Amino acid sequence: MKEIEVIHIKEDVELNNPVLIVGLPGVGHVGKLVAEHLVEELEAEKLLEIYSHHFPPQVLVDENSEIQLVNNEMFVCHTEKHDIIALIGDHQSSSTEGHYKLCTVYLDLAMEFGIKRIYTLGGFPTGQLTYSDEVLGAVNNIDLIDELKEYGVNFKENEPGGGIVGASGLLLGLSRFKNIDAACLMGLTSGYLVDPKSAQSLLKVICRIFDIDIDVGPLEERAKEMEKIVARLKEVEQQQKGMPEMSTVKDEDLRYIG
Amino acid sequence: MKEIEVIHIKEDVELNNPVLIVGLPGVGHVGKLVAEHLVEELEAEKLLEIYSHHFPPQVLVDENSEIQLVNNEMFVCHTEKHDIIALIGDHQSSSTEGHYKLCTVYLDLAMEFGIKRIYTLGGFPTGQLTYSDEVLGAVNNIDLIDELKEYGVNFKENEPGGGIVGASGLLLGLSRFKNIDAACLMGLTSGYLVDPKSAQSLLKVICRIFDIDIDVGPLEERAKEMEKIVARLKEVEQQQKGMPEMSTVKDEDLRYIG
Amino acid sequence: MKEIEVIHIKEDVELNNPVLIVGLPGVGHVGKLVAEHLVEELEAEKLLEIYSHHFPPQVLVDENSEIQLVNNEMFVCHTEKHDIIALIGDHQSSSTEGHYKLCTVYLDLAMEFGIKRIYTLGGFPTGQLTYSDEVLGAVNNIDLIDELKEYGVNFKENEPGGGIVGASGLLLGLSRFKNIDAACLMGLTSGYLVDPKSAQSLLKVICRIFDIDIDVGPLEERAKEMEKIVARLKEVEQQQKGMPEMSTVKDEDLRYIG
Amino acid sequence: MKEIEVIHIKEDVELNNPVLIVGLPGVGHVGKLVAEHLVEELEAEKLLEIYSHHFPPQVLVDENSEIQLVNNEMFVCHTEKHDIIALIGDHQSSSTEGHYKLCTVYLDLAMEFGIKRIYTLGGFPTGQLTYSDEVLGAVNNIDLIDELKEYGVNFKENEPGGGIVGASGLLLGLSRFKNIDAACLMGLTSGYLVDPKSAQSLLKVICRIFDIDIDVGPLEERAKEMEKIVARLKEVEQQQKGMPEMSTVKDEDLRYIG
Repeated sequence: MKEIEVIHIKEDVELNNPVLIVGLPGVGHVGKLVAEHLVEELEAEKLLEIYSHHFPPQVLVDENSEIQLVNNEMFVCHTEKHDIIALIGDHQSSSTEGHYKLCTVYLDLAMEFGIKRIYTLGGFPTGQLTYSDEVLGAVNNIDLIDELKEYGVNFKENEPGGGIVGASGLLLGLSRFKNIDAACLMGLTSGYLVDPKSAQSLLKVICRIFDIDIDVGPLEERAKEMEKIVARLKEVEQQQKGMPEMSTVKDEDLRYIG
Repeated sequence: MKEIEVIHIKEDVELNNPVLIVGLPGVGHVGKLVAEHLVEELEAEKLLEIYSHHFPPQVLVDENSEIQLVNNEMFVCHTEKHDIIALIGDHQSSSTEGHYKLCTVYLDLAMEFGIKRIYTLGGFPTGQLTYSDEVLGAVNNIDLIDELKEYGVNFKENEPGGGIVGASGLLLGLSRFKNIDAACLMGLTSGYLVDPKSAQSLLKVICRIFDIDIDVGPLEERAKEMEKIVARLKEVEQQQKGMPEMSTVKDEDLRYIG
Repeated sequence: MKEIEVIHIKEDVELNNPVLIVGLPGVGHVGKLVAEHLVEELEAEKLLEIYSHHFPPQVLVDENSEIQLVNNEMFVCHTEKHDIIALIGDHQSSSTEGHYKLCTVYLDLAMEFGIKRIYTLGGFPTGQLTYSDEVLGAVNNIDLIDELKEYGVNFKENEPGGGIVGASGLLLGLSRFKNIDAACLMGLTSGYLVDPKSAQSLLKVICRIFDIDIDVGPLEERAKEMEKIVARLKEVEQQQKGMPEMSTVKDEDLRYIG
Repeated sequence: MKEIEVIHIKEDVELNNPVLIVGLPGVGHVGKLVAEHLVEELEAEKLLEIYSHHFPPQVLVDENSEIQLVNNEMFVCHTEKHDIIALIGDHQSSSTEGHYKLCTVYLDLAMEFGIKRIYTLGGFPTGQLTYSDEVLGAVNNIDLIDELKEYGVNFKENEPGGGIVGASGLLLGLSRFKNIDAACLMGLTSGYLVDPKSAQSLLKVICRIFDIDIDVGPLEERAKEMEKIVARLKEVEQQQKGMPEMSTVKDEDLRYIG
């Protein structure tokens, strides 16, 4: 396998006013929830799969005990005004360099599809458990702000204060060099749990932007399933910490003997 | 030395219905125990050695005080129905990228040997000390399930919930792209100790699959030795943590002075 | 994006006795404070921007909610005696190799500009909260010492005892191979806070070296803003630690399941 | 600067029965102490310097406030029977891959010098503060054992139990592929302190091997100085941990915001 491998599932797609929406794992999994919900509810078609050395060396096991190598995928959802390309996936890059390399590939693909606008979706951690239906925005072109305000997006000076980390931020930064307008839309969330309420607020904004109507009900259910997976991963992680193994002498443990 | 170096010990081997079994270090060392036991009991011949920058920079010292650079090795065990290629070794990759690169090499070698089926062996951590003789399976092709159930392998929806990490999982994922059927067989184990009981259960399944008869007795002894090595590694690790050294200013300690 | 990408903003600059000043983030942000202050007060022009896979995958959000991909930048400040090229930025490299690669690029650029002297600015952590206006120096050519002493720089045997880590040190080391004289000037600082007082002391030395007159007043204000950003980053970091996420299975957590 | 850069100081050296001795930082700095002592006492000449992206991005400051980029160096010490090439240095590689790449370069250089035997020197951590003058050995060719026993080296089954990590081990492993005999000689040491007593024991063995006479007295003094540097590095490390900085958002802190 190459460092980053793109497997095209559907060739020669004709797209109508295509827009890219990115919903990868992140704070509260808000972006992932919304983008996967769109893919489900709009009966999207899979366009391609992306595999990479920069994802963890992991397969997931489905309900039939069949494995899937972790990946990112692009789907197309047809709506009246736009064809929405949705980038979703199991993981973001596990290394700094990988983030840059993967986002460069995402952007190259977007350009091949003729994308003129990118929305990256995410969560903004408040650290508080009280609920807010606010959706915060940041843009790579100041001209987008008035338009997005009309759809209910809030903008606050220098927020998020710590910047935007990962694909959601990096895609805004890199697409600027290509003169592609991009905005990051963040649902406010505690930061401690998979958050379907925040995803609902964000989804409503998306529906307004694309002038579509989507049932927000199933989001609760989807969030519960996602929470279960997160819990399992945490459990497994804990168990693994219990046992020192020959296979886990790590770089940082290597003080030189001899 | 190249990034990954394969040293062929025995050239031009003729193989009869070859199958690959992978038993590298992992949870409870269950897979490693079983595969090394097969190699010993079936008087396997060594085919090749694999060295790599992605293994720790470490040599092991044998009973004669002679060192061996850590590696992975492939052996061939001749049985009536199949020639079993066994991949065993001291370590798995110490980096994410290394996992992908090494597994790509393992798979290339398997294809050169004409392998049509892969079994990766491992442990499934339960977090509980109670014993279970269950062997859990996951496959990269749903068609394998009925066959494996007959040999006593259990399948459970979405298990392991955290997916399969490392070579055992990655080989299933990568071989799928090459249309090679592969299954991961996991003995249930606490996750805290080298587990010969779990290895016995897994070995019994392997014997049924290959229609061979192998003494499970020596597994106990083998596990005890392995446990000793694990304990030593742990001890050494603890000692090393006691002393800050010039040689161990690590990446993550580098805040910028000056 | 390439591994290191230099975007020239202003071409064909003619420079008068150019000198390079480096003020990247570090202990007490002393160097960063001073260099950014110079850029502001001397109404510097931006020459170029440097983007790299070795910076974090992060964008910062400005007061207009517009993002900026984290980078390093070179400005030119015209003064009577010298044109000062100032290298400032959001981050230093996040990897060991990246430090070497980035500093090699900085030095190549400096040589293209015809630089004959480099000053890297930083903080020297005392671990004590008492204030000192001392500026400590280290050089890559012993001939610089007498000159710098006249400007008020102190030199102490084997200080800093732990050496100089990051770009401030590495640029001294690498420029030596090119026969470019370079000195690291460090304001003494506690090491616990963004330190405008230490920056003032260092700025005074810089003013003497370049025979310029700069208002030190705004440094206090600038430091307060920087402290706020540091606080926010810390807060965000804390929040992020609260929640295990699918996206954060890290290399070091990967013990092999299966 | 290239990934690994070798700067030759002295060309066309003629060597008499050359042997390589390696004394890089490690447990108790025993190997480093002995090799640097040899270089001092035998008035060695410097042959070359090795710089690398795999060393920390750090310069050290000497007694004249002049910096030196961290490196590894080879010296030649002329003795009656052998010319001893001594490899000493400030650091070992800070990454797994770097260890393999650097040791490959060390070995290539050794082969250019016509080296037929390698001794890597190190410490073996006992975890106990009681003193022992034992020197433990491991070899890459069993034929070396009888010879080394005569010089007072002890050999114990499977010791060190955790193998030999870093350049001391890796050079034994790699040189075996080139049919170069190599032994690792380890002074027993607590593992908690720079240990001149252990270095004395190891030095005595070296003197017997090379039939030379060297004053062990200055070792105490040298160890004290080294201990001071270690202490300073520790102090600096502690101070740095006190302050979160913009420049230190690390890979592992990157959970995705937005």
